[in-house]
Amino acid sequence: MTNAYTPTITAFDRSPDGGSGLARDTRVRWALEEVGQPYEVRPVSFAALKEPEHRARNPFGQIPTYEEGDLALFESGAIVLHIAETHAGLLPTEAHARARAIAWMFAALNTVEPPILELANAKLLERDKPWAEKRLPLVMDRVRDRLNRLPTRFGDAHWLEGAFSAGDLMMVHALQRLKPAGLLDEYPNLAAYVARGEARPAFKRAFEDQRAFNTRERRVKS
Amino acid sequence: MTNAYTPTITAFDRSPDGGSGLARDTRVRWALEEVGQPYEVRPVSFAALKEPEHRARNPFGQIPTYEEGDLALFESGAIVLHIAETHAGLLPTEAHARARAIAWMFAALNTVEPPILELANAKLLERDKPWAEKRLPLVMDRVRDRLNRLPTRFGDAHWLEGAFSAGDLMMVHALQRLKPAGLLDEYPNLAAYVARGEARPAFKRAFEDQRAFNTRERRVKS
Repeated sequence: MTNAYTPTITAFDRSPDGGSGLARDTRVRWALEEVGQPYEVRPVSFAALKEPEHRARNPFGQIPTYEEGDLALFESGAIVLHIAETHAGLLPTEAHARARAIAWMFAALNTVEPPILELANAKLLERDKPWAEKRLPLVMDRVRDRLNRLPTRFGDAHWLEGAFSAGDLMMVHALQRLKPAGLLDEYPNLAAYVARGEARPAFKRAFEDQRAFNTRERRVKS
Repeated sequence: MTNAYTPTITAFDRSPDGGSGLARDTRVRWALEEVGQPYEVRPVSFAALKEPEHRARNPFGQIPTYEEGDLALFESGAIVLHIAETHAGLLPTEAHARARAIAWMFAALNTVEPPILELANAKLLERDKPWAEKRLPLVMDRVRDRLNRLPTRFGDAHWLEGAFSAGDLMMVHALQRLKPAGLLDEYPNLAAYVARGEARPAFKRAFEDQRAFNTRERRVKS
């Protein structure tokens, strides 16, 4: 099932992560690959993020956005949910299982990711502050507090609940940000879960596409 | 429209905010009041939050949870979305407007709330740290960076997009947490927006109910 309109998403013209897949367009690319929906990508420079044209798409001046005919959306969670609702493959059809999968999306975004973002802030925005070294373990423990609750979910199961869903997609992408910090290595079950996500053909296509996009040659400005 | 089953939500047996409405059961109470769905509340003590019975409802050991017949959900965002999807009154019926309202829910939870939670952590968990005073302005600026993007959305409009929706409900509740810090006073448009939310009869009922719940007399333990 594909849309009548080919959706267009926005991505950083050149992602600050250099194409390691942490920018949030990767989530949306992954979802579109999972459901087999072709899409186009419009690069947005850092300067353009704050300009009215992009602010009309996303008032917070962030990527990704999603345009499909008359519909313009922002927030990776909302975009992935919209893709999942309008295509088969990312949400169970049974109503209760569907609601549970959506609950895992919110858990990824509102319970697991906030301390991970706080850790990213501590490491990037506050790395030169006098408190940086002493404060870091405190913030890492806030992340662990959440990770400690997750692994028991994976007994014999590969995914959070039943088949792979948009909930797993968001959770895996939120957890990927922990890999450089080494935190994920403390949780073999979670590291294996993330690896299972990364082994999916749809993720691989999304990852390679964003890497090629972020490392492409630009026209030299005259 | 009401459910065949009366849903049961969980709330802190005694909220650490003393009933000022910041605990996340208030969001769910508010949504249930908006749609006219009666519900029951099961108190959970801090000790019981970490026990298997509650962890089966929410692996992260948080409130609120939501049970309705065979369905058990966690995450306030997922619960409010479920209520909005199964009752009239919290989401537009037109598909694009509905997707936009859901985008505002995600914006509240994943873009606006994370720096607000970081501020709460700075004020509560790190108040005795040697860096507390110097670091606070930095964290407050992170919150302002998000608030600065919001007010232009309110010209003549009362709500984020068209009629009041689940997106406004989540945004108003996320912003309420800023009132004690005085940050909301810097944004008269936003303060007025929050006040409009608080003036809704459904919010008032939800607020009074959680306050009565949190200040009720407990049985003295023998």
